[in-house]
Amino acid sequence: MATQVNPPRGMRDFLPVDKRARERVLRVIRAAYEHHGFEEIETPVVEDAARLHAGLGGDNEKLAFAVMRRGLTVDDLRAAEAPLALADLGLRFDLTVPLARFIATHRSSLPPVFRAIQIAPVWRAERPQRGRYRQFMQCDIDIAGEPGITAELELLTATGDALTRLGIPDAFIRINDRRILFAALEHAGVAPEQHESALVTVDKLDKIGREGVTEELAGRGIDGARLLETLDAIRALAEGAGAAPEAAHAGGDAHAPERIPGAGVAADASREPLEGFDVAVLEPVRELLGAEVGIRLEFDPTLVRGMGYYTGPIFEIAHPELPFSIGGGGRYDGMIGRFLGQELPAVGISLGFERLVDLVELPAEAAAETVALLVDKAVEPADAVAIKRALVAAGQTVRMQRRTKNVTGLLEQLAASGATHFAFVRPGDTAETLELKPIA
Amino acid sequence: MATQVNPPRGMRDFLPVDKRARERVLRVIRAAYEHHGFEEIETPVVEDAARLHAGLGGDNEKLAFAVMRRGLTVDDLRAAEAPLALADLGLRFDLTVPLARFIATHRSSLPPVFRAIQIAPVWRAERPQRGRYRQFMQCDIDIAGEPGITAELELLTATGDALTRLGIPDAFIRINDRRILFAALEHAGVAPEQHESALVTVDKLDKIGREGVTEELAGRGIDGARLLETLDAIRALAEGAGAAPEAAHAGGDAHAPERIPGAGVAADASREPLEGFDVAVLEPVRELLGAEVGIRLEFDPTLVRGMGYYTGPIFEIAHPELPFSIGGGGRYDGMIGRFLGQELPAVGISLGFERLVDLVELPAEAAAETVALLVDKAVEPADAVAIKRALVAAGQTVRMQRRTKNVTGLLEQLAASGATHFAFVRPGDTAETLELKPIA
Repeated sequence: MATQVNPPRGMRDFLPVDKRARERVLRVIRAAYEHHGFEEIETPVVEDAARLHAGLGGDNEKLAFAVMRRGLTVDDLRAAEAPLALADLGLRFDLTVPLARFIATHRSSLPPVFRAIQIAPVWRAERPQRGRYRQFMQCDIDIAGEPGITAELELLTATGDALTRLGIPDAFIRINDRRILFAALEHAGVAPEQHESALVTVDKLDKIGREGVTEELAGRGIDGARLLETLDAIRALAEGAGAAPEAAHAGGDAHAPERIPGAGVAADASREPLEGFDVAVLEPVRELLGAEVGIRLEFDPTLVRGMGYYTGPIFEIAHPELPFSIGGGGRYDGMIGRFLGQELPAVGISLGFERLVDLVELPAEAAAETVALLVDKAVEPADAVAIKRALVAAGQTVRMQRRTKNVTGLLEQLAASGATHFAFVRPGDTAETLELKPIA
Repeated sequence: MATQVNPPRGMRDFLPVDKRARERVLRVIRAAYEHHGFEEIETPVVEDAARLHAGLGGDNEKLAFAVMRRGLTVDDLRAAEAPLALADLGLRFDLTVPLARFIATHRSSLPPVFRAIQIAPVWRAERPQRGRYRQFMQCDIDIAGEPGITAELELLTATGDALTRLGIPDAFIRINDRRILFAALEHAGVAPEQHESALVTVDKLDKIGREGVTEELAGRGIDGARLLETLDAIRALAEGAGAAPEAAHAGGDAHAPERIPGAGVAADASREPLEGFDVAVLEPVRELLGAEVGIRLEFDPTLVRGMGYYTGPIFEIAHPELPFSIGGGGRYDGMIGRFLGQELPAVGISLGFERLVDLVELPAEAAAETVALLVDKAVEPADAVAIKRALVAAGQTVRMQRRTKNVTGLLEQLAASGATHFAFVRPGDTAETLELKPIA
């Protein structure tokens, strides 16, 4: 039995040094979010299978680990029509479905606008590969109950602050809006029933390129070239016209002109590919791009995000040195209603903690004083522990250690594991007689 | 779908106020354990089913939630000989089996004596009832690699400190030793193959009383009266003779006499029920009782603890006002070897967090300054968020809130949710022009 003893496939243990580093990053994120008025909640790691498979999790539903019903008999196995019929619970694959369920459960105990923090693991039965795990942490913030763009701005601001506190100033956020995508699809003549599948293809732009996307869409009778041309024109419109008078006017209030930077989206729809395109759909993104949220925002009209439940602005956190995103989110106004029975607008952003933690370089923490007691063999256990107890009561962190012959080697080991001071403990010693010396 | 929306049966959500209280108690426990030189680790919430069902979890193995193998077909269901054959993973039912597996996996990266903290949820498919949940937190400390009583003393000291910091000074720890129990069984003429089942019955003493125990044992041909008489005599021996010369001598060192209090165990075995009983088996408990560990220890020779893997001293944390234990543990020298392939001594204590958290009354935390911004409808979202951002940058915790007509009611709500100050935000305001007022 001493052969291979590993954690389950695709999952990880964390040794003290790793656990410390992870918890420290989580503390920084949590503190940032709390300062922005978000409050942490917790839900069980499993949800009823029916809720996990309610069609809200997209492809992730297929990756859910299923927990078997209790008290199953062999007859139940024989009678089951599908494996999932034997499961009544499942490990959550994200924190959004549980949040929607939580809000439906506790609506009457929550404030009208509820700002939630969830920092917790999720599970997906993905093919294990470098950087992709079957249990991993997510850090989500969500605002439920606020239909307006204030919610998006608060989320972006809190996210920018968290990334700044983590020392990742180069991170930026790609933004788009589902309504822009659907307007572009309509403008490009894609039939409504093909919208979702067309978006799945557009989402592959990074991987298969423009030609690949056009080809795949052509296979379904969709004019991909025209769709991409429309999206290009929307991008050009946004990039080209900063404080165009139309844009200012579109803002509809006296403050707008001052807040439209170069990245603003103009309302000049005179270019040919956008003829007849209703630019009003660009307004929310324009407003987001015009606000100062403490992190660079970049409009990307080809950004799709996988989940079908998004209804408005969508976000993806990116870093110039990374080929993958380090988080994302968006507005999902219809989803909570699926559990609650009445509509409740919501928007959220999730940090991909496992990718983030590798990027973070927090300044070294001031080492707490940790005393290693090197205890002589002849010292009674009760006496050694009494000394330890007295030092802890005085505020020290104390590790006991049997004294070995090679003290130099021992001190090196102890220093590596965080000890800053040491003392020999000999028979007759008390906490008062000890000589604490720094480990050089 | 708006009817009943609850978390899975027997499991709980935590609202912000509960989550805060729980995390605060966990922080106190974690800090205490860290000061005593323990280091936190983490393992996945699931373990391979074969390891969970290796016979190390006692009755808890039956309560494990099973996670289904991925990619099962209907043919697999038809061919399976038992439900568990369809499961390759299971949710952990305690933190001891995962720790043993963890140490086997990482032995070469760990110090020779490893002091572990695990603060994490476990799952058991118990019949839900008040105070008993299907997902609950455990707080374990374990020392692996130390065969001597020093490990027990360090654990007891750290536990005592944690309970003191939590403001539960009345808690005490019942102690016994598996070796005393087995010696008593042998002394009472119970056949070795009946030892384990006899202990299961003795463990019910609280519930079914002496008569019930005697009766149940009689049904298996065991002289229960003699067994209880033996255990009584062991208790009397311990209570009766404090600093008896034999006891002092048994300590074997010059310091021992000073450390043996009234609760010490004497070596006077002249009483009739113990004639021929080898009192040397009482030595470890005597040594524990004689040490000052910062929490009251009480010898209870009828203490059994359910798990079969205990090999030496066993502990149960009790409170005078509670009919159930709030934690427990013991030495389990053989268990890690089951995974590691070589013996490694270990001892641990687990705090029953869910029972503890209800007992704890920590002094109120100094309320952090939390500012509620009451935002006028006419204020642009970007302006409101800019003000929030400036206040957060200045160190405040900030909650935005639409201003409603009933400001008094709103302020009451905000105060209840932790806000200490408020400010109205009107068009044209900046962080500098705001008037922050305390909420009376």
